[in-house]
Amino acid sequence: MYTGVEPVARLIEEFTKLPGIGPKTAQRLTFHLLRLPAEQARSLAEAIVQVKDRVFFCSTCHNITETDPCAICASQERDRSLICVVEEPLDVLALERTRGFKGLYHVLHGAISPVDGIGPEELRIDSLLSRLKGSPVKEVILATNPNLEGEATAMYLQRLISPLGIMVTRLARGLPVGSDLEYADEVTLTRALEGRREM
Amino acid sequence: MYTGVEPVARLIEEFTKLPGIGPKTAQRLTFHLLRLPAEQARSLAEAIVQVKDRVFFCSTCHNITETDPCAICASQERDRSLICVVEEPLDVLALERTRGFKGLYHVLHGAISPVDGIGPEELRIDSLLSRLKGSPVKEVILATNPNLEGEATAMYLQRLISPLGIMVTRLARGLPVGSDLEYADEVTLTRALEGRREM
Repeated sequence: MYTGVEPVARLIEEFTKLPGIGPKTAQRLTFHLLRLPAEQARSLAEAIVQVKDRVFFCSTCHNITETDPCAICASQERDRSLICVVEEPLDVLALERTRGFKGLYHVLHGAISPVDGIGPEELRIDSLLSRLKGSPVKEVILATNPNLEGEATAMYLQRLISPLGIMVTRLARGLPVGSDLEYADEVTLTRALEGRREM
Repeated sequence: MYTGVEPVARLIEEFTKLPGIGPKTAQRLTFHLLRLPAEQARSLAEAIVQVKDRVFFCSTCHNITETDPCAICASQERDRSLICVVEEPLDVLALERTRGFKGLYHVLHGAISPVDGIGPEELRIDSLLSRLKGSPVKEVILATNPNLEGEATAMYLQRLISPLGIMVTRLARGLPVGSDLEYADEVTLTRALEGRREM
């Protein structure tokens, strides 16, 4: 974009490259930074550099970490017979917030999606299989997203892992807590019926 | 936000401080940057630092600039008898894109808004008045936004500038080009009627 001021044009362009940020938002962010005290803007720039310098992916579970292996993989308090497979590092955060899971994780970094050209070889599936072979793992929980890609990935993994003699489970599908039955979609309601449990 | 990885938590927090970016978007941006090649992330960080290091506000018109006075204020090709008053540097860009204005600018950096605690003393109004006194300016175009705050600011400025013997004009209000009369709001349509011109 022409602004007459090169660094402003460049920052707008850099912001536009980020996902979900269009030219208007990029302009707004740039002019916001222009008005901020220099140290606040610098603090954002430093945070970006530090995230690239200090954070990488764990060689075992592929979650984000500052140490290798990561804190979860290295912990002696986690249940090593249980691995929860998720699509993204953010999913690990969501599960950790529940404080209900004490096993290990494996981050695939995506889901199988032929439409987007993402096949099994783009994901950390090989590494999952070599991790499972000869390990004390008794159960693999497939916690990929409950959508088309996530389900396809779960099916694919189940077919690879079951022959290893490891139990494969999937997170329950049903009505979200606090939701309204009247607004539930048909598929969710069907799953909730199928998965009904005795009280 | 807890992420277990301090630089990630810090970057999410820094992004959340930006306008229009909530915790979810901040997470998404952070994980996007984590996946980018290091030089692309560094390029964004550098653009932020450069914008703060190299860009400041022109001491005459308060528009963004890398030199003082700015390119427009310093240009011998601009009409020095005409000053267009706008709220933000982005408004200068919008007017420059028309290529129809050859005068100078004055950026107020806001509009009078008692609700937000912004009075005339928060804006670059004193500097505008001292600029006008003893200058060759014949006309001041008030190009503040056509909303409540912009109109209030224009009224306030008109009362200050008219006594100096300088013509004060306001941008025309009417139907936007390419719009549909049927969908125009009443106020705009009233203004369009009032401002009708002989063909």
